[in-house]
Amino acid sequence: MFSQADFAHMQRALALAVRGLYTTDPNPRVGCVLVKDGVVIGEGFTQPAGHDHAEIQAMKDARARGHDLRGATAYVTLEPCSHFGRTPPCANALIEAKVARVIAAMEDPNPLVSGRGLSILRDAGVEVRCGLLANEARELNIGFVSRMTRKRPWVRMKVAASLDGRTGLPSGESQWITGEAARADGHAWRARASAILTGIGTVKEDDPRMTVRAIDTPRQPKRILVDSRLDASPLSQIFVGAPTLVFCATLDDTNAERADALRARGAEIVAIGNARGKVDLPAMLGELAARGVNELHVEAGYKLNGSLLREGCVDELLVYLAPSLLGTNALGMFDLVAPTKLDARTRLAFHSVERIAEDLRILARLVHDNPNTDPTAGADAHAHGEAP
Amino acid sequence: MFSQADFAHMQRALALAVRGLYTTDPNPRVGCVLVKDGVVIGEGFTQPAGHDHAEIQAMKDARARGHDLRGATAYVTLEPCSHFGRTPPCANALIEAKVARVIAAMEDPNPLVSGRGLSILRDAGVEVRCGLLANEARELNIGFVSRMTRKRPWVRMKVAASLDGRTGLPSGESQWITGEAARADGHAWRARASAILTGIGTVKEDDPRMTVRAIDTPRQPKRILVDSRLDASPLSQIFVGAPTLVFCATLDDTNAERADALRARGAEIVAIGNARGKVDLPAMLGELAARGVNELHVEAGYKLNGSLLREGCVDELLVYLAPSLLGTNALGMFDLVAPTKLDARTRLAFHSVERIAEDLRILARLVHDNPNTDPTAGADAHAHGEAP
Repeated sequence: MFSQADFAHMQRALALAVRGLYTTDPNPRVGCVLVKDGVVIGEGFTQPAGHDHAEIQAMKDARARGHDLRGATAYVTLEPCSHFGRTPPCANALIEAKVARVIAAMEDPNPLVSGRGLSILRDAGVEVRCGLLANEARELNIGFVSRMTRKRPWVRMKVAASLDGRTGLPSGESQWITGEAARADGHAWRARASAILTGIGTVKEDDPRMTVRAIDTPRQPKRILVDSRLDASPLSQIFVGAPTLVFCATLDDTNAERADALRARGAEIVAIGNARGKVDLPAMLGELAARGVNELHVEAGYKLNGSLLREGCVDELLVYLAPSLLGTNALGMFDLVAPTKLDARTRLAFHSVERIAEDLRILARLVHDNPNTDPTAGADAHAHGEAP
Repeated sequence: MFSQADFAHMQRALALAVRGLYTTDPNPRVGCVLVKDGVVIGEGFTQPAGHDHAEIQAMKDARARGHDLRGATAYVTLEPCSHFGRTPPCANALIEAKVARVIAAMEDPNPLVSGRGLSILRDAGVEVRCGLLANEARELNIGFVSRMTRKRPWVRMKVAASLDGRTGLPSGESQWITGEAARADGHAWRARASAILTGIGTVKEDDPRMTVRAIDTPRQPKRILVDSRLDASPLSQIFVGAPTLVFCATLDDTNAERADALRARGAEIVAIGNARGKVDLPAMLGELAARGVNELHVEAGYKLNGSLLREGCVDELLVYLAPSLLGTNALGMFDLVAPTKLDARTRLAFHSVERIAEDLRILARLVHDNPNTDPTAGADAHAHGEAP
């Protein structure tokens, strides 16, 4: 059993972790609270990659405030790391500081190192417990968990539609169905993503920048363009600024010139084609995971949205519903053909519903047939049976 | 200014009024609390038509408990009536009982008698105030207000759809998109309506009973069928039980036989046609109001839903969204053609959003261009400037 105080301190550690929402990528967002004799003596959260992890920050904070760490309890939202990466292992640092207890929200989801940090601590005589507010910690790093356990990013697809499920007029007019607050909220979801993905259709029609603008962030997500035939104009806004990653189906003599023109704009081009001459979307997700993409934010059009759904490449729908009706012949959300039986419909689970000014924001998750591929499943299995 | 105690007592009166949600029709749902020396001495709510109004019930309750009403304060959710209807006027009864104060949530919306009950009370030396929790009182009787001020019912259209706004497969299969809890919730909305309306398309395809079954109610709403050409089979379920009201476009030699067959099943047939040979829907609403319909609950199909929307006959959408996607070629909610410009889209305002088990329930109101026809507008104007 965990105490009320344990809950409060872990809640605080989670709140600290959230401060790294836009900045820790590709590392997970982690918070740490150090408590001694019931008093908080140090706090920290993960700094941008290559800099201090949450535990180190909290220890520095405690020492700067003149505290002795011996006998303290560390509340961390993720198992302390056990490996030398760009920073030394946090588990060792906690042992050296003679911390008496470590309470972790969840184990490291990386199957290669999961549990090792906690073992090192236990072997050194530190009292260790795991599983406090595990679901909350997992949600906060759902992309990191996905990359570690499934070798693919957590794919969140954003759609703005009218209440009757339409995203634009037959004429193509779609700006703006939702209000300013919903659009700003959409930028906050962009900001937390490792990368933003769109398709050639959207680039041709709307020429978007696909950057975070409506809110402050020190980090711009990587931009990804799915462009099977390399049809994008090098003058497209998506190539302005940091290099954009372009996925195409093949690279050969027929498109070498176009590829060079995009490279001249800073683009990196990766060819991953399927048998239909399109980008192999599941393989693309694997490539993105290999490049450290945790959360992938999709803002694409009717066609690519449909392809991603049909090929099982979507984990979550971020739907903004506007208080309006557009009509039957207006554009639908996804190029998705209805099944012949209702039983075969695409199943979702509503995760949250919020009012954003005059609009609604609905988070709905795809119900995967195989729970082994669902990073939101089995959180309890990681809780060591000690969760409340 | 109203006191905290005033608020609490009126809140209680509103809670009492809700007890008449399924039974007071065509009268409004009214609650009354009698308070003396800070103590509640009597409570009542409107009984079925022809029986006691809330005030009379509350006075009987107080007397049955042995209380003297002299000097008491009456909290009523609607201005006490001033006319002899099926019951004597409540204003006079309050005066005879020597009640000292009357606090009303809102005036009677009937423009012919509005304010008269309060005037009679004032003239008799009773202290009168109006406007406490007026919006809540108005919402509770939104249909009655609509009938009195607009001479048409409050029209609430129920739709069950997938998140992508589809109500059924191309094959027609649509049972069941939403879950059991949402369907039961839908029956609660049927139960509070004066009447339930559907169209010939739905009768032919689904042959529904259009009765309240999932919840307990002593009153079944009137059933209304829109059937321009009298195509309904006399064996349809909608004719089983209490008489159903059928609207058609014309009654003449061509359909006299079919009309007789429906009358033989207890149906009453009313012909109100428009120039296109269809039922004149706005005129039908007028006829329904004249027959005492306050809230009209619509459960129809794609075509009639679209006609009602296009002809400005809908006040509110009651949308159950299921956690699923059906696909682009599945059936849409309404036969509604997209406008050529986004500015001309049908505008709504989200009124409430609730999770009903795995589904969502969204109440969205049509934004009428003319606020004079919107019974939810101008509530403050009735508050006599005394509302907090």
